[in-house]
Amino acid sequence: MRTRVAIIGAGPAGLLLAHLLDAAGIDSVLIERQNAEHVAARIRAGILEAGSVDLLRRAGLGERLAREGMEHRGIHLQWPNERHHLDFVDLIGRSVWVYGQTEVTKDLLAARERAGQAAFYAASEVTAHEIDGERPYVAFVDAAGRPRRVDAEIVVGCDGYHGPSKQAIPDALRHTWERNYPFAWLGVLADVEPSTDELIYAWHPDGFALHSMRSRTVSRFYLQVTPDENIGDWSDDRIWDNLATRFALDGWTLKTGAITEKSVLPMRSFVTTPLRHGRLFLAGDAGHIVPPTGAKGLNLAIADVALLSRALIAWLRDGDTAPAATYSDTALERVWRCTHFSWWMTTMLHRHGDDFDARLQLSQLRRVVGSRSAATELAENYAGLPMPGLD
Amino acid sequence: MRTRVAIIGAGPAGLLLAHLLDAAGIDSVLIERQNAEHVAARIRAGILEAGSVDLLRRAGLGERLAREGMEHRGIHLQWPNERHHLDFVDLIGRSVWVYGQTEVTKDLLAARERAGQAAFYAASEVTAHEIDGERPYVAFVDAAGRPRRVDAEIVVGCDGYHGPSKQAIPDALRHTWERNYPFAWLGVLADVEPSTDELIYAWHPDGFALHSMRSRTVSRFYLQVTPDENIGDWSDDRIWDNLATRFALDGWTLKTGAITEKSVLPMRSFVTTPLRHGRLFLAGDAGHIVPPTGAKGLNLAIADVALLSRALIAWLRDGDTAPAATYSDTALERVWRCTHFSWWMTTMLHRHGDDFDARLQLSQLRRVVGSRSAATELAENYAGLPMPGLD
Repeated sequence: MRTRVAIIGAGPAGLLLAHLLDAAGIDSVLIERQNAEHVAARIRAGILEAGSVDLLRRAGLGERLAREGMEHRGIHLQWPNERHHLDFVDLIGRSVWVYGQTEVTKDLLAARERAGQAAFYAASEVTAHEIDGERPYVAFVDAAGRPRRVDAEIVVGCDGYHGPSKQAIPDALRHTWERNYPFAWLGVLADVEPSTDELIYAWHPDGFALHSMRSRTVSRFYLQVTPDENIGDWSDDRIWDNLATRFALDGWTLKTGAITEKSVLPMRSFVTTPLRHGRLFLAGDAGHIVPPTGAKGLNLAIADVALLSRALIAWLRDGDTAPAATYSDTALERVWRCTHFSWWMTTMLHRHGDDFDARLQLSQLRRVVGSRSAATELAENYAGLPMPGLD
Repeated sequence: MRTRVAIIGAGPAGLLLAHLLDAAGIDSVLIERQNAEHVAARIRAGILEAGSVDLLRRAGLGERLAREGMEHRGIHLQWPNERHHLDFVDLIGRSVWVYGQTEVTKDLLAARERAGQAAFYAASEVTAHEIDGERPYVAFVDAAGRPRRVDAEIVVGCDGYHGPSKQAIPDALRHTWERNYPFAWLGVLADVEPSTDELIYAWHPDGFALHSMRSRTVSRFYLQVTPDENIGDWSDDRIWDNLATRFALDGWTLKTGAITEKSVLPMRSFVTTPLRHGRLFLAGDAGHIVPPTGAKGLNLAIADVALLSRALIAWLRDGDTAPAATYSDTALERVWRCTHFSWWMTTMLHRHGDDFDARLQLSQLRRVVGSRSAATELAENYAGLPMPGLD
């Protein structure tokens, strides 16, 4: 089989790239390890930056987002006995949207179906070849067990942290940075109306807690736990007790309901460079992972794809390879910005280290809610980084 | 001997407090462990915040500062191949002044001499007593070896990190936070015109370096070294080589000259609470130490004294004990802000940890010079914290 762009991985990054290329008349093929139902059901991030929302709208993917998404002006920051609202709209004129990655993926799959372009699901043994030459290809075994090959002009790896595509870059040229944090998140989905209008990020001596939401009837909670936490030790009662303690505030009550999902999420920072080698490009989690505290993961994948789609369109439609030549360096500027911001939000809000660290955290939190420059710095990083091609 | 305020320690904090009390007609006595020459010769911090300069001017101590001090609009931040100027005046309308702690001390000693108030130098075995009662006193052995006692209404400890005054607060009531950093500064004084108009803070893979100055003919340099560094291993040539490497920039040359002083300075964060117990008050290094990277130590001592002098004047002249009751909590707000800022500047600029930490540092440095909110946040902390009683 022959196409112009072979995309390994059909998560939101791969799907969005295929969609943007298609809009420019460039054919692509998606090769995904999981089946389509699995991809559509993965529960991940839930916050879209203003720039991500603009990009999805301009790409014709904004209809259901506008109808079902929840626009938030900012976030709440909390520590014992105090809860403060940071209003991003007041600070920088930008908002964020609560709209789950699951929903973005559904919208992209629907658009893909309408466009009628090819995708291989449940592909195994996926490998990229000849990326140093002019005729790269992706080999894999299809869902029926047959060996397959997709020949292309460009191969893009959107296959996440565990994906095979980055292995095609010679070890001698690859550099990897990684940080594992000494804590994890216990993520909980509950059938209960959110007890807050906007997200609450809570510092507490017992550990960090986050009150997020999926809809007007489904709440999402996270509790800081240890990385080797046994989920079996967390009964529903224990979860509600911990949430009530960490979010406690005079005059405020946490609504409880049926817990429908529990999982432990590790916290990791990871960056691999370069993001381009020959005719292979990496985008999204294939190139970088951030801990979820700053809500950057999905937005960073969207930013990669915004930049990469323009570079590939310039190359494949207009014969201009200059944007492709700078893709890796340009994308990595944002990657390191978001890696730093995510690390900063994570280390500011999670209990770790000693009592001196706790005092530093509280001093930083007080500064953020008390100083316009500190609040603006958080707001710009959280909601306001310019999306490539839109600003 | 009887006075109204017995002040343990005649460094800049103790001297300034005595000066401000005297201006309000309140007698004090200074009791200092060292002799006057030693106090006057100690080389320490060299940067005054805008608010510190305002306070010294209003206290009649600004004449020589205006003549000999050097007003700086900001600082330079550097990493390999890049040097950027942060202009505090543009960002927040405030400047800083280069005017050594030695000079501030000289001005204070001269003012003290003119006022003709009592001071005991070379005092040993200094202890504070009866601070829980109405008649506290300070006992010590004077320079001639005679036991002495100064009875007072208030005792103030301005006697630094190693001073005895804080020991008078019962252990059960004291809480201490301390952090020792895995690096130190090699400080160098050299008879050479500064090679820069304003301070250069340089991040480098070999370690942090700071180019400061004492006058138009004397430069001050610091190099990051290990805490157990043997100063004998640092020949003048090795020092100049290291400075030239860490400050290297195309088109810029480091001027060299005779090195007149070398010393290794440890890096420590330390806070003790409360800053007031009964009739004992702590100010300056007696209550808190910050690493010198943010130039906060002397300014924080001045801020403590600005607040404390007002509290003691209210109490002793007007009979109002309310400001004294809130002194500790109010002072500690600024202490923790400066402790956090000093820690942040220190950990951003010194090599420590792994290569991932280095990338975080460079990302943070790029953000500071590339974003107005991040630059403003640094400028406000470095130059612009409001001085108690002046804003």
